[in-house]
Amino acid sequence: VTYVRNAWYVAAWSHELARNQLFGVRVLNEPIVLWRDDAGVVAAFEDRCVHRLAPLSLGRCEGNRLRCMYHGLLYDRAGTVVEIPGQERSTANLSLRKFPTAERFGWIWLFMGDADAAREEMLPPLLGLEQDDYTLGSGQLEYAAEARLVHDNLLDLSHVSFLHEKTFRMTDVWARERPTVTEFARSVRSERWIENQGVVGSLSDSTRVDTYFSYEVFVPGVLLMTVRSYPVGTASTLDRHHPAPGERLLEFTSQAVTPLTPKTARYFYIMGEQPRRGTTSYDLTNTERAFAEDKAMIEAQQSNIDLTPGYRFRATTADRGVVAYNRLVSRLIGLETGGRQDASGGVSQVNL
Amino acid sequence: VTYVRNAWYVAAWSHELARNQLFGVRVLNEPIVLWRDDAGVVAAFEDRCVHRLAPLSLGRCEGNRLRCMYHGLLYDRAGTVVEIPGQERSTANLSLRKFPTAERFGWIWLFMGDADAAREEMLPPLLGLEQDDYTLGSGQLEYAAEARLVHDNLLDLSHVSFLHEKTFRMTDVWARERPTVTEFARSVRSERWIENQGVVGSLSDSTRVDTYFSYEVFVPGVLLMTVRSYPVGTASTLDRHHPAPGERLLEFTSQAVTPLTPKTARYFYIMGEQPRRGTTSYDLTNTERAFAEDKAMIEAQQSNIDLTPGYRFRATTADRGVVAYNRLVSRLIGLETGGRQDASGGVSQVNL
Amino acid sequence: VTYVRNAWYVAAWSHELARNQLFGVRVLNEPIVLWRDDAGVVAAFEDRCVHRLAPLSLGRCEGNRLRCMYHGLLYDRAGTVVEIPGQERSTANLSLRKFPTAERFGWIWLFMGDADAAREEMLPPLLGLEQDDYTLGSGQLEYAAEARLVHDNLLDLSHVSFLHEKTFRMTDVWARERPTVTEFARSVRSERWIENQGVVGSLSDSTRVDTYFSYEVFVPGVLLMTVRSYPVGTASTLDRHHPAPGERLLEFTSQAVTPLTPKTARYFYIMGEQPRRGTTSYDLTNTERAFAEDKAMIEAQQSNIDLTPGYRFRATTADRGVVAYNRLVSRLIGLETGGRQDASGGVSQVNL
Repeated sequence: VTYVRNAWYVAAWSHELARNQLFGVRVLNEPIVLWRDDAGVVAAFEDRCVHRLAPLSLGRCEGNRLRCMYHGLLYDRAGTVVEIPGQERSTANLSLRKFPTAERFGWIWLFMGDADAAREEMLPPLLGLEQDDYTLGSGQLEYAAEARLVHDNLLDLSHVSFLHEKTFRMTDVWARERPTVTEFARSVRSERWIENQGVVGSLSDSTRVDTYFSYEVFVPGVLLMTVRSYPVGTASTLDRHHPAPGERLLEFTSQAVTPLTPKTARYFYIMGEQPRRGTTSYDLTNTERAFAEDKAMIEAQQSNIDLTPGYRFRATTADRGVVAYNRLVSRLIGLETGGRQDASGGVSQVNL
Repeated sequence: VTYVRNAWYVAAWSHELARNQLFGVRVLNEPIVLWRDDAGVVAAFEDRCVHRLAPLSLGRCEGNRLRCMYHGLLYDRAGTVVEIPGQERSTANLSLRKFPTAERFGWIWLFMGDADAAREEMLPPLLGLEQDDYTLGSGQLEYAAEARLVHDNLLDLSHVSFLHEKTFRMTDVWARERPTVTEFARSVRSERWIENQGVVGSLSDSTRVDTYFSYEVFVPGVLLMTVRSYPVGTASTLDRHHPAPGERLLEFTSQAVTPLTPKTARYFYIMGEQPRRGTTSYDLTNTERAFAEDKAMIEAQQSNIDLTPGYRFRATTADRGVVAYNRLVSRLIGLETGGRQDASGGVSQVNL
Repeated sequence: VTYVRNAWYVAAWSHELARNQLFGVRVLNEPIVLWRDDAGVVAAFEDRCVHRLAPLSLGRCEGNRLRCMYHGLLYDRAGTVVEIPGQERSTANLSLRKFPTAERFGWIWLFMGDADAAREEMLPPLLGLEQDDYTLGSGQLEYAAEARLVHDNLLDLSHVSFLHEKTFRMTDVWARERPTVTEFARSVRSERWIENQGVVGSLSDSTRVDTYFSYEVFVPGVLLMTVRSYPVGTASTLDRHHPAPGERLLEFTSQAVTPLTPKTARYFYIMGEQPRRGTTSYDLTNTERAFAEDKAMIEAQQSNIDLTPGYRFRATTADRGVVAYNRLVSRLIGLETGGRQDASGGVSQVNL
């Protein structure tokens, strides 16, 4: 399985890295050190001293320098060796690989491909922890599975009716009716109305509304889902087209799935709901129960994949988003590699 | 190492699977779901949804249907997809692989090879949990070793004198004298008299008897051992030939060793002894101490095998049963594979 | 990575093996049984019965014989099978591989190569647990890393200034100044003066001394470090040459790093300091804290190595000892293998 490299990956939470601190992460199987300087700016380098591969994340910040704490090599903010203890000067001009970084939505992002291709505009247009007009919650989960299996899960929410039957208790319209799927240059969006049902997340409330859901997965595996509610009849009035963007955003969630190693992934999530309830944060109890259901199923799916040489998935009509997204990923990987690499992971998507 | 496929393997205990329940097992490295319907009948299928390989053992029984609880595909008792939620009909005609099943002796059995070759008569003629005229006990153990090493252990009981010196405390005649070994079409039987010794399992008792032991290992690795005791002198009167089958069956044990993965196995055992003692069950304390001795030795043996490329076993005269059984297994595998596969696992049996 | 085989490896502590006892160890990925007889003499054999590879370390000493406790084969002190229970005689003449052994400094040593090449004179000239005129301490540590990474650590003590900044609190002269490095036939020695500093290990003491350090790493990875202190001015008087051997040995440590498997190692250490303090032993608290710093760094370094195909180390001027020792190891392996094997482990030492 391969992933797009010219894309922004969530590597950590902003709050995990204070000033003058180092933080070791793994992204796409590469060890990376995040380093926030005294001014608050984050830089990222391969987490491997040029001398003997000791991890720099076990090192020390010395002002605008980073010292490897095995044998003391000192690096500047460009990742260049500027001092070797006891050696007058280096005969080589050695630097660490540097990764472009960005900080948005509460997350530290890394651009894993060609540094020259990195542009902040390529960050997905999410909602995140800056939305202090919402009641917010957040968390993360470790998957013992390939990241793409989690991406597929987010792209086909028909599973909500079955896997999350007891947690999200959504109407089975989720599984029976198909969303509108739209393909963009670097994302796939699914949209749908759920008409004349209770307000999402207020199962005890008897109010009925028409609710509009939009969930969009951006390369390399980042979800934005928004939920808007309207008076009953709105969907019908709009002939089930999407409503104009407006005030009625009830809930959102931003989720990022980052491959750590070939068969492990980290799942970062932020939830927001209206109204803002002062210091009370989003109650994650039920959400995290549902996420545990996803994790158990996907890790068991991974175990079956590992036992099944030459396996293939078969696509149902509910997989339109899955198929479109994976086609997009394949195309982007093909562009990056000049078509030299098979991005399918050996998985043929056959119609069922 | 390969195993015979056209044979019945013990997959689980009958009591592990109630009506309308699913139970995931692993046999010969294949994930399998056992499914007992409302009428009590067990069926077995590959534990892998045709859609995206989710395990069906995490699914739900819906009367005579089984629903995958990831995206909701529904299967009938033939293993055929009969519903894809939200999709009018499947364009493919897809089914799960189905495994023949049987239920006997307290165990659920699976036939792992060609389904057309499965016949209940091929089940080993064991004694099991139906023997309610005995005091019964049962249990299981997980081995971190190839199943065949446990088979070999059961085929050469000369190890009882050494490995179980402190638990079974059998006379060293076990190691010094050789049993009569008889080869059958799908089993190897060893038989022997132990003359003028205490009653097995009654070490404190001063009674002396002649005891007749028969232990037979059936393909694919299932043991039946029976113990009969007679007045001292019987062995001599019979010129050490086997006695006529009769009333004097004192003890039996049925044991099945099932390969889960290439290097793990599950060991199922049932013990029975006369007389039946009401609600009191067989005291397994000492037996399980001895089984732990086997497990420690065999797992250490496996570890040595893994460290020794091109290793070979060497056979002593005590290995007659081992050699005969492994030759039988090789022949059966040769028949199944048309001789294309080396069943020896690279192990040459050289005489010592 | 390969290691020299014609060399003595520390396999265990003398006190781990009482008379008439067996002890299973792993050296260079080979399972070995140590066997001390009634007279106190240690022999070593492959820990694998010729019959079915059961470990003999799970066996039993029977006077001058060793019995495998799986099926009862009996071996003599030459490692030859002398009895197979129930079999009149063996048709084969089978023996275990025997390894030359030595016992010195508190350790049991094994010669892992050609037994004819083993000579006790090849043992490194260490100081050890026989030095009862010292206050002694000892211990061991398990590394999840290649042994050679620990060897490299011992060969370049410039790391003390950084990695052990908070534990050994040595002056940064360690990192800034270079020791004198001398190459011998089977070792590399580094020597240095530290002038006009506090007494090592007496940080609270205001006494100033000149201290002479010598640390020598012997094939296949055994360190002797000695520390001698002199009145301030001695180094200068001697023009910083080494002092004559004398009474002033203040401290020593002998350390042996034995490869267990390709990526695990056992680290044995003995510490001694003057004066002898009766029954009080060397306080290892701080030392073991420092050793834990080494272990954390080296295991993280190993993890980076495993993630970095085609990686290479780059040598600083502090690596003179490291480079010399690894060159010596390569040369010795080349002699053993007739140059057929690349001893570099794929690691090029490039100057930095």
